[in-house]
Amino acid sequence: MRTFNIKTPDKKIVPALQDKIDNLTKPKGSLGRLEELAVRIGTIQQSLSPVLRTPQNIVFAADHGVVVEGVSFSAPEVTAQQIYNFLKGGGGINMFARQHHFILKVVDCGVNADFGDLPGLIHRKIRKSTDNYLYGPAMTPEEMERAIEIGAEMVQLAYQEGTNIISFGELGMANTSASSVWMYFFTGIPLKECVGAGSGLDNQGIEHKYQVLKRATDNYQGNGTAEDILRWFGGFEMVAAAGGMLQAAELGMTIIIDGFIMTNCILAASKLHPEVLEYCVFGHQGDEAGHKSVLEALHAKPLLNLGLRLGEGTGAICAYPIIESAIRMINEMSSFKQAAVTKYF
Amino acid sequence: MRTFNIKTPDKKIVPALQDKIDNLTKPKGSLGRLEELAVRIGTIQQSLSPVLRTPQNIVFAADHGVVVEGVSFSAPEVTAQQIYNFLKGGGGINMFARQHHFILKVVDCGVNADFGDLPGLIHRKIRKSTDNYLYGPAMTPEEMERAIEIGAEMVQLAYQEGTNIISFGELGMANTSASSVWMYFFTGIPLKECVGAGSGLDNQGIEHKYQVLKRATDNYQGNGTAEDILRWFGGFEMVAAAGGMLQAAELGMTIIIDGFIMTNCILAASKLHPEVLEYCVFGHQGDEAGHKSVLEALHAKPLLNLGLRLGEGTGAICAYPIIESAIRMINEMSSFKQAAVTKYF
Repeated sequence: MRTFNIKTPDKKIVPALQDKIDNLTKPKGSLGRLEELAVRIGTIQQSLSPVLRTPQNIVFAADHGVVVEGVSFSAPEVTAQQIYNFLKGGGGINMFARQHHFILKVVDCGVNADFGDLPGLIHRKIRKSTDNYLYGPAMTPEEMERAIEIGAEMVQLAYQEGTNIISFGELGMANTSASSVWMYFFTGIPLKECVGAGSGLDNQGIEHKYQVLKRATDNYQGNGTAEDILRWFGGFEMVAAAGGMLQAAELGMTIIIDGFIMTNCILAASKLHPEVLEYCVFGHQGDEAGHKSVLEALHAKPLLNLGLRLGEGTGAICAYPIIESAIRMINEMSSFKQAAVTKYF
Repeated sequence: MRTFNIKTPDKKIVPALQDKIDNLTKPKGSLGRLEELAVRIGTIQQSLSPVLRTPQNIVFAADHGVVVEGVSFSAPEVTAQQIYNFLKGGGGINMFARQHHFILKVVDCGVNADFGDLPGLIHRKIRKSTDNYLYGPAMTPEEMERAIEIGAEMVQLAYQEGTNIISFGELGMANTSASSVWMYFFTGIPLKECVGAGSGLDNQGIEHKYQVLKRATDNYQGNGTAEDILRWFGGFEMVAAAGGMLQAAELGMTIIIDGFIMTNCILAASKLHPEVLEYCVFGHQGDEAGHKSVLEALHAKPLLNLGLRLGEGTGAICAYPIIESAIRMINEMSSFKQAAVTKYF
């Protein structure tokens, strides 16, 4: 599989960033997590005056073969229907993208529908849905490589457009199932604790979903490498997101991580290239069972906790103004010296 | 004292608001707290399509006589110095106001400095600092009335400017002390749990602050009414903020509550007119000891928890984009019917 050349950002700049922040006209530490964010992004950009350019959110969409097992509350046709809704600007992600001036791209990696040459959609269909991983791998090695490349290609394009901060979202009925399985393999947390309600299952539905995923993991006959687990259980949209994250880190972008599914995509990506985590800001902790645990496994503290569980990148974009506040703080706020204010400490 | 005519918003509209939200193209409940916010603001505005107009943040500034007891980490001259910094646009609140397009007003209610006719500052100085409440009431009944009126006047002006969502901030060295005393009297929580580090006291400093406030509360000889406690311990800026909140509720505005000090101002205001709480959205839970407890006493769940402890209204303004997201949701997102998406439930 293709590899990415991801550098660990040089931490030598941290004391200078902290010193700049400590001299702004406020009690030391009084902007809390905004200060941490400014240090993190200053370190990624190796700059005492970091900037955010042309934010964008890329939604990858695909269907999952396992959906026939009844693991999702939503009807399978919703994936395709929501594509049309997004292209008309009526989805959850559309309004948040408009609000925070994100470029929004919607990429078909494997939706089980014929879109023809539908304008506005980025056509990269690998195949109409993955295979059902209850009986074997969801995709072939070549298809997995293709999904990684689609993610990387989209991020290279974003880079050419000037983007230096990016988020990823997904659309794909049954993709919390794949996420739970990745989480189970990559964290070692018992499968039961990784499985949740997705778009609205009741307790009986969750139990059925768990039983299906239990059988699927028991049936797993791969070689146990991260790459193999991605391939066996992944959705095309999830592997594309992981590829996009790796490419974004290689290009020095800041990556805002969305909810449960994208958290499991960065978890998977980090099993291929651990350095990718240095480029991440976690946007939102949602209500999906397991999200809190996988975040803890990643030592991640999301900025928001608003009970969102919509995916699409909504939790990432909602966190963007907080990140922007941090960048404004380090660039626009007066120092004690500039403002002739008696230093507080 | 002047009273305010605050109506309890009519809850009959709630089912219609909830029905509209449940028919948007997302799993039911999947936008979590944004859905609660849309219901709350729709109820305040009695509208299925609520709007946010001309947001503003009013910073009230004043000094506190008790500062001579060494209860504040910051030097007393910082109140006046920060006024100049705010007017030049270099304070924490300035950058957030610019980011979220808030009108920002700075009102001198009682700063211990001569500003002459300094342009940009709203001149409403009652007196140069309150009296030291260790030995008697901080202000006279007439001064308290004047502070309430200043708050109300500023909000009436905002209303004429078209504002329907407002936040308040403060500037005044030692004002966490007055806040802690109000919290103690109005919640019954032991004083020790109401006292924190303010702008940066160490443990020894916090103990000293507690001892001063313990003596002050032991010495209290008033009549025990809410009005009397506001007057005895209040800062001019804090009483003005409470008056502003009451006026905002009377005018049907949504009020975004900032950090520890503004939480105690709404607590105090609610002791005069409990209905004021129906108009509030709590922006931020900060790190000041006692903030969590006073929020719990108010049954309030702030939107953000970012470790801010700067005051000025920063925690309120940082929460504004979340509120805006909620309003966009209810106004801009497609319904299942409009989008021809199979309803998820």
